[in-house]
Amino acid sequence: MTLKSSRHGGDVFSLAPSERNKILDFSININPLGLSPLGRRALLRYWEIETLRYPDVEDRDVTASLSAAYGMDKDTIALGNGATELMYTLLRFLKPEKVLVPAPAFSEYRLSAEAAGADTESFLLDQDHGFSLPLGELERKMVPRSLLYLGHPNNPDGCLLSMEDFKKVMALAEDRESYVVIDESFIDFVEGDVSYRSFVKTYSHLVVIMSLTKFYAVPGLRIGCSFAHPALTEKIKDHLIPWNVNGPAQLYMTCAARDREYIEASRAFCSSERKYFAGKLGELEGLTVYPGCVNFILLKLTGSIRDAADLQKQLLPEGIFIRQCGNYEGLDNSFFRLAVRTREENNRLLKALKEVYHP
Amino acid sequence: MTLKSSRHGGDVFSLAPSERNKILDFSININPLGLSPLGRRALLRYWEIETLRYPDVEDRDVTASLSAAYGMDKDTIALGNGATELMYTLLRFLKPEKVLVPAPAFSEYRLSAEAAGADTESFLLDQDHGFSLPLGELERKMVPRSLLYLGHPNNPDGCLLSMEDFKKVMALAEDRESYVVIDESFIDFVEGDVSYRSFVKTYSHLVVIMSLTKFYAVPGLRIGCSFAHPALTEKIKDHLIPWNVNGPAQLYMTCAARDREYIEASRAFCSSERKYFAGKLGELEGLTVYPGCVNFILLKLTGSIRDAADLQKQLLPEGIFIRQCGNYEGLDNSFFRLAVRTREENNRLLKALKEVYHP
Repeated sequence: MTLKSSRHGGDVFSLAPSERNKILDFSININPLGLSPLGRRALLRYWEIETLRYPDVEDRDVTASLSAAYGMDKDTIALGNGATELMYTLLRFLKPEKVLVPAPAFSEYRLSAEAAGADTESFLLDQDHGFSLPLGELERKMVPRSLLYLGHPNNPDGCLLSMEDFKKVMALAEDRESYVVIDESFIDFVEGDVSYRSFVKTYSHLVVIMSLTKFYAVPGLRIGCSFAHPALTEKIKDHLIPWNVNGPAQLYMTCAARDREYIEASRAFCSSERKYFAGKLGELEGLTVYPGCVNFILLKLTGSIRDAADLQKQLLPEGIFIRQCGNYEGLDNSFFRLAVRTREENNRLLKALKEVYHP
Repeated sequence: MTLKSSRHGGDVFSLAPSERNKILDFSININPLGLSPLGRRALLRYWEIETLRYPDVEDRDVTASLSAAYGMDKDTIALGNGATELMYTLLRFLKPEKVLVPAPAFSEYRLSAEAAGADTESFLLDQDHGFSLPLGELERKMVPRSLLYLGHPNNPDGCLLSMEDFKKVMALAEDRESYVVIDESFIDFVEGDVSYRSFVKTYSHLVVIMSLTKFYAVPGLRIGCSFAHPALTEKIKDHLIPWNVNGPAQLYMTCAARDREYIEASRAFCSSERKYFAGKLGELEGLTVYPGCVNFILLKLTGSIRDAADLQKQLLPEGIFIRQCGNYEGLDNSFFRLAVRTREENNRLLKALKEVYHP
């Protein structure tokens, strides 16, 4: 069994369906509790009543539900066919002079900028200090009418942007008439209220983007949203194609965003399971575990195996797939990333890792 | 009960869900037999096995299935988040000098051109001769590097483009280095093999676009495809966002395109039911029925009621919604369009129409 590489690591669709379904995929960071029960129930009824209808081109129900769940006015919310569509659309019509991209970071930041024909420049996050921002470097690199991408928490390191850095960056951006796009796709996994979305009415150049398919566990459905000042939100909507969000995605998220019990349970589970998993990983020799706050963990190989591609190869016969991080700018072949999954699945990985080191 | 107007006629989402589900919607042209049984069965299993996975970014299974069903090489096929995404994407990167749009026609032809900032110009189809092309006018209007949209069959009239006109238009387009985008979203409802998709290897400037949600009855799912020369298909794919086609849509179409029994039954049903429905409509006074070949029928009010908005208002209390066509360029308020639905539903409409005229 071999896996072709794909845009974001392993390409499970290059496997036959029977092999595909056996893989324990630690390379994608999806809520291990699975779908919201309320959302799932609505979906199963979907095929009876809603299929023969276009999706609501104005996304009314799902916008109202997200507005209530996230405490944001409806006129600050735009919906996308995944967060990806919002990124590509934003870049296309904002036409920034330069796009500043952290390293390491989610590769679509750079790809969306390149697709829009923008100049891109990267800046290294400080690996030794919680992957923090190099503020001086940003100040030098941010020309007027730039656009700065930030992950909060950032993928693949799982680190947060501090309030102090956020305010400095926003002051700099407003001064340079530049946009800041903060990707909060994993924010719902974080304990406490640390989102910056409530600042979109304070800063007209701030856009907060969220994939909704990680926390709500529906990567196949494609839905994401942006929060921005109403004037900017209006422009985003003008540049999206009609019916961009499919019916099942709208219906599922309308219900799942109201599913408080599921939301609380998911956050609590991932938080405690991350602590357990990171702790156990830390006990293994030859691994450095980076402390994060989300449902994935960045690690570095420091022992007898130094190349994550080797480790990936050794784990695949066990039906386990990990995300090697050598293709992240700013990281090298010794880094890899693990999703936090269920206790049983995490233990399977721990056992397999031990066997790799002590066969 | 009143309906707000929307992008394409009535806005059923402006109604409460209880009212919404009572509406017999003759304004959208969806296969009255509903979903493919094979596709539906796969979807119901989807939530068990596939939800927690990204859709295949390369659309492999669905491309293979469409390739077999439509007799087209895989490298001529690109998939979109509905046909709409393919139209908007094409216009954006082809950047034509001028976009020629028939009148009447599906409004997204013009809107996709305007979104791409292109100059648009319309030309009237010949209402008195089967909505045929004004070839002389096209020859005058087509400047070098134009793009011409055509519907085959055309919406709202349901008329086909003849082989003779197709060849003349393609010769003209190749001569002017112009693209021809033929929208075959309703071609599967037509008896006989009349598609022009097999010509995409002959004409490098031809793109055939299909919505797959009308014939396969899943407007909520969002999926469409284009057929074009492999070199052009490669460019289309380069300009689409990653994961643009959601998982359920890929899965459903993979199975539905193989469901020969459903496909044959749907085509046969719509064809015979259209003849019945058009015949009965033709017996009513005050209506001109335009002969078509698809699952919708264009009509003109010629009796005591002359404004389709009035007719729409009178049918709505009966829970019936029709598509008034006054907002189509080239038509006026006296035109409206009806989908061909099931025998029972079509009879309900016929009964309601009779009561409007002879209360």
